[in-house]
Amino acid sequence: MAKDMTLLWGSGSPPCWRVQVVLEEKNLQGYNSKQLGQVSSFSHGNLIINESIGICEYLADRFKDQGTKLVPDDYSEKAMMFQRMHEGNSLMMKAGDVIYYNFKVPEAERHESALQRNKEALTVEVKLWEDYLTKSKGQYLVGKDFTLADAVIYPAIAYLFPKGLCEKKYPKLAEYYKNLKTRPSIQKTWPPTWFSPPGLVHVKDFV
Amino acid sequence: MAKDMTLLWGSGSPPCWRVQVVLEEKNLQGYNSKQLGQVSSFSHGNLIINESIGICEYLADRFKDQGTKLVPDDYSEKAMMFQRMHEGNSLMMKAGDVIYYNFKVPEAERHESALQRNKEALTVEVKLWEDYLTKSKGQYLVGKDFTLADAVIYPAIAYLFPKGLCEKKYPKLAEYYKNLKTRPSIQKTWPPTWFSPPGLVHVKDFV
Repeated sequence: MAKDMTLLWGSGSPPCWRVQVVLEEKNLQGYNSKQLGQVSSFSHGNLIINESIGICEYLADRFKDQGTKLVPDDYSEKAMMFQRMHEGNSLMMKAGDVIYYNFKVPEAERHESALQRNKEALTVEVKLWEDYLTKSKGQYLVGKDFTLADAVIYPAIAYLFPKGLCEKKYPKLAEYYKNLKTRPSIQKTWPPTWFSPPGLVHVKDFV
Repeated sequence: MAKDMTLLWGSGSPPCWRVQVVLEEKNLQGYNSKQLGQVSSFSHGNLIINESIGICEYLADRFKDQGTKLVPDDYSEKAMMFQRMHEGNSLMMKAGDVIYYNFKVPEAERHESALQRNKEALTVEVKLWEDYLTKSKGQYLVGKDFTLADAVIYPAIAYLFPKGLCEKKYPKLAEYYKNLKTRPSIQKTWPPTWFSPPGLVHVKDFV
């Protein structure tokens, strides 16, 4: 049990969701949980972390012998895990630059050309991830085992499909999305609602 | 010696520099080095990583018993290290949104109001880091020891001062900047040139 832990989270926010997945993978049920905003904030006793990947790394290290391993022993797999996990920031940023364009940019500063460029950048990015999964030696990002990279990236992928990502164009991503839906840590933490106010840019028409 | 390692790097690029610092801290001299662009790309044997923080984490883990420790044993210090290291992405992004504004945004899409907002966001961010150093129990970001957080953040701080950051307004950052200049890993990897084409926005007038 994890009664000395508290997570402030927002429903459907990938940075929050990745932390919830890791907490489940590490059998850290029973933590205090409060639904708040888009940014995750985590405490364990007196210790506070609010960078989502930082929280995931802390938990994977602090509870290395508990629950799912999450960090491979093999150095080439570990290197790949670090690579994909940090690359997640690009995916999130590029998705956000499109989906939240109307929230981030005041009306007087919006340009169709800028949004178009952001859309193209997101398309390139999503194709990269389809390619990474195609080249993986297993069903996960790093190979045959679920790692921190999946905990970090899956929420972003699972966020994009309901926003219009085309399953036919991205068959490996779609397979990954569906296969992991039934993984207990994912199923248990599936967002009860998604942040979808009017004004979000859907991705179905271009990516 | 590290003859099976290769680093492609750009002079004065913080993401490249942080990797060079970690290579020195881990006594991994003698690696193959090629000066190229702004993005670092690293290989070790057949293994390739091109996310700078990912490379730093890989090296700190792979050579944990060699050279400087970089990752504290104490979990609260380790949590702080993860927090600050990942927060480095915000610092880099906000600095880039100002300094490279004219490079990132085509002329027809530029707005003084947008640049102004970016400047304000950078000012808030820099003040945060001044505050983090003020609250640290030692001269480094996490306390009394140089950690991965310093290797990741120092190049960004050292990049901002020549771009106009005011030493009087940010005395703790200035002290940190100066104290670490003589650290062997920093001194040895100090950028031979800085990327300063015309059009960069200086920070001295506002931050």
